[in-house]
Amino acid sequence: MTGTLYGLGVGPGDPELITLKALRLLQSCPVIAYPAPEGGASLARAIAAPHLPEGREEIVIAMPLDAGHGPLEAAYDRAAEAVAGHLDAGRDVAALCEGDPFFYGSFMYLFGRLAHSHHVEVVPGVSSLVAGPAALGAPLASRNDTLLVIPATLPEDALRARIEGVDAVVIIKLGRHLDKVRGLLGDLGLAANAHYIEHATMADQHMAPLAEAGPRAPYFSMVVVHRRGEAW
Amino acid sequence: MTGTLYGLGVGPGDPELITLKALRLLQSCPVIAYPAPEGGASLARAIAAPHLPEGREEIVIAMPLDAGHGPLEAAYDRAAEAVAGHLDAGRDVAALCEGDPFFYGSFMYLFGRLAHSHHVEVVPGVSSLVAGPAALGAPLASRNDTLLVIPATLPEDALRARIEGVDAVVIIKLGRHLDKVRGLLGDLGLAANAHYIEHATMADQHMAPLAEAGPRAPYFSMVVVHRRGEAW
Repeated sequence: MTGTLYGLGVGPGDPELITLKALRLLQSCPVIAYPAPEGGASLARAIAAPHLPEGREEIVIAMPLDAGHGPLEAAYDRAAEAVAGHLDAGRDVAALCEGDPFFYGSFMYLFGRLAHSHHVEVVPGVSSLVAGPAALGAPLASRNDTLLVIPATLPEDALRARIEGVDAVVIIKLGRHLDKVRGLLGDLGLAANAHYIEHATMADQHMAPLAEAGPRAPYFSMVVVHRRGEAW
Repeated sequence: MTGTLYGLGVGPGDPELITLKALRLLQSCPVIAYPAPEGGASLARAIAAPHLPEGREEIVIAMPLDAGHGPLEAAYDRAAEAVAGHLDAGRDVAALCEGDPFFYGSFMYLFGRLAHSHHVEVVPGVSSLVAGPAALGAPLASRNDTLLVIPATLPEDALRARIEGVDAVVIIKLGRHLDKVRGLLGDLGLAANAHYIEHATMADQHMAPLAEAGPRAPYFSMVVVHRRGEAW
């Protein structure tokens, strides 16, 4: 009997936003795996920590500080080999994923390496996409709305063209692109409808009107915009 | 002390995909409210049922079979009045929502009526947007992908224009529009990348390649498409 790799969504940050299913698997899988920045703490593990029993075997997937393609791929090659070793020996492995495993998560890299050779099950989680609007009290989409999730890293023209055609927008990967996003939403007449949030549901959650955010945004942040504003 | 209205995401269908926070509030709120089709059973209540203690006061929001604007608004006017009565008397109310309250949910109608006068807290849940791809084993979005959620009810030209500009698409509200969606994705060369799923994570979950789905889709169904196909 070979083991199962579970891609386990542990939710957006608040440990109480984990599902009963993820909790059960955290407590039954003898091996856990999670990404961590080189020399730093893993957010996914921190979210799961209050629920983790003692004595789990832990596979740390060290994310190279130089986030280039090569070192990242090499880190996941090593991690997939370690995970496969446990699966082949019949041990289930839970890969901890912030939010949801398939929503902009690094679980993709394990999935792509192991899904064709091993049994993999994805346990969906509460994603930041819905946790941000919930914390903001800003409805995301309803009725016949179109909803776009778009990384701020795209060129301004591409952002503009796509945002113009939809009702609701969530802009992610803000980083140093916050000023570009702010200017663009101003041009489109959407500045007053734009809400900024970082670290949604975490202890250091912070919200602001977009005009007052920045100048630089952390990785776990987003801007939520709806064309209708507060006209629900 | 007035009560709090909780918009409680109960997840996509599997009762084990409820969060610890939603579970705690289900067990502590003396009043629950939920939509149900006139003369039918409530899906949101069915998802929560295994976790519900005895003796809760229940507010059934009867959805008129004629889903026109007027009768729907009237049903929510009555529901908001009943909810407000409990809140004003100091009783917390949990409004049960399939998936996530702010992701195409009917909680919007209560929120719009009560958020300006009462304390409302939204508890995010696992949405169908992530539950569908998890069940399909089809990664949703990663890296610098753009992701679009779009209702099949839009005219074909509008669907085409928006789908052409993005990497990943989730098409909802399929109903009698399944053939239109199938034809359109075929024209765009995306037919082989399109996965159909209905009732994700529920007992009667059903998946199929889009070519074999239909002819008519139930309300809780979606098509998931990624431009890269399986090239993760």
